[in-house]
Amino acid sequence: MKRIIMSILMCLLMAGLVYANEDAKTMDTLSVIHARKSVRNFTGAPVSKADLDKIIRAGMAAPTAGNKQPWSFIVITERKILDDLAAGLPNAKMLTKAGAAIIVCTEPDKANGKSKDFAIIDASLAGENILLAIESLGLGGVWTAAYPYEDRMKHVKMVLNMPQEVIPLNVIAIGVPAGQDKPKDKYKKEKIHWERW
Amino acid sequence: MKRIIMSILMCLLMAGLVYANEDAKTMDTLSVIHARKSVRNFTGAPVSKADLDKIIRAGMAAPTAGNKQPWSFIVITERKILDDLAAGLPNAKMLTKAGAAIIVCTEPDKANGKSKDFAIIDASLAGENILLAIESLGLGGVWTAAYPYEDRMKHVKMVLNMPQEVIPLNVIAIGVPAGQDKPKDKYKKEKIHWERW
Repeated sequence: MKRIIMSILMCLLMAGLVYANEDAKTMDTLSVIHARKSVRNFTGAPVSKADLDKIIRAGMAAPTAGNKQPWSFIVITERKILDDLAAGLPNAKMLTKAGAAIIVCTEPDKANGKSKDFAIIDASLAGENILLAIESLGLGGVWTAAYPYEDRMKHVKMVLNMPQEVIPLNVIAIGVPAGQDKPKDKYKKEKIHWERW
Repeated sequence: MKRIIMSILMCLLMAGLVYANEDAKTMDTLSVIHARKSVRNFTGAPVSKADLDKIIRAGMAAPTAGNKQPWSFIVITERKILDDLAAGLPNAKMLTKAGAAIIVCTEPDKANGKSKDFAIIDASLAGENILLAIESLGLGGVWTAAYPYEDRMKHVKMVLNMPQEVIPLNVIAIGVPAGQDKPKDKYKKEKIHWERW
């Protein structure tokens, strides 16, 4: 009898370990959505190409009007380029400590109905997938706006040798979080209208 | 000895059930991002208010320029309103079989720098969170564009009694998937530029 109880206890312990491990490795989507925050403080550690590949793949899984996929992505890991970007972007000084950056680009000519609106919306959805992928991998990221600021877009295009017709929507800084950035609670009941406005 | 083996086997079965259940309930974020698809075929079953609340909360957790939160959300479950929306929206006929809909709204006057661009981008990010939340709950959804089509926006505003200054970005149909919609693989290596364009 004692041996049976012992083996049951050991099995329960095993089940617990499996459960806990699964939880840590693959935090569920709603938790990641609520845990996502703008991380502006990085340790300076690098970000692996394997992680960056997963992050970009998440971006390309976003919905896109008429399946036009007007987006493209510039992925940067070189220290000098990150610093050159930071030098001309007042809102992206954290790039000097980031391990990488992704610029989500978009082209109105390639969007549904050649619409700039769809180009911006599609690229925004890809950008949100990227932010959530970053959070889910235990990394930190922050969307710094390039669009709609003419001066910031000009700087990004110049540093990255981009064609004139391509819009750099943002510069997403990516790195290992230093730990001080926390998610905001933005829930407001008055923003919800049931059935009608 | 036989009893010990039996109890071990039973415990392993339990562990397996716990694991499988966890997996189904909380599929990890990257998997949900890649599993998300535009679901246009619904069983006609209702969507619970509890699920809709989770979905809206995910929307409000999106990033927003200058923390301005220019968004708001109309949540519809009434059959007649869903059908009235469908009647005037050529791209949203699936609403007649959907259990619910969410309209992500936005107001340029409330956005960062009163920018229409930021109003649209912020609402788009909330919309993507909503689509991922829908998928993660085992439901199906599809973003049907209201913006930038003047005629569609006019119809949505009229049916839902919306103020003129509020933009209905989309109508997201939500329901129990009938099963025939599959995710697209949109990965294209040539869309990625390493270090520079």
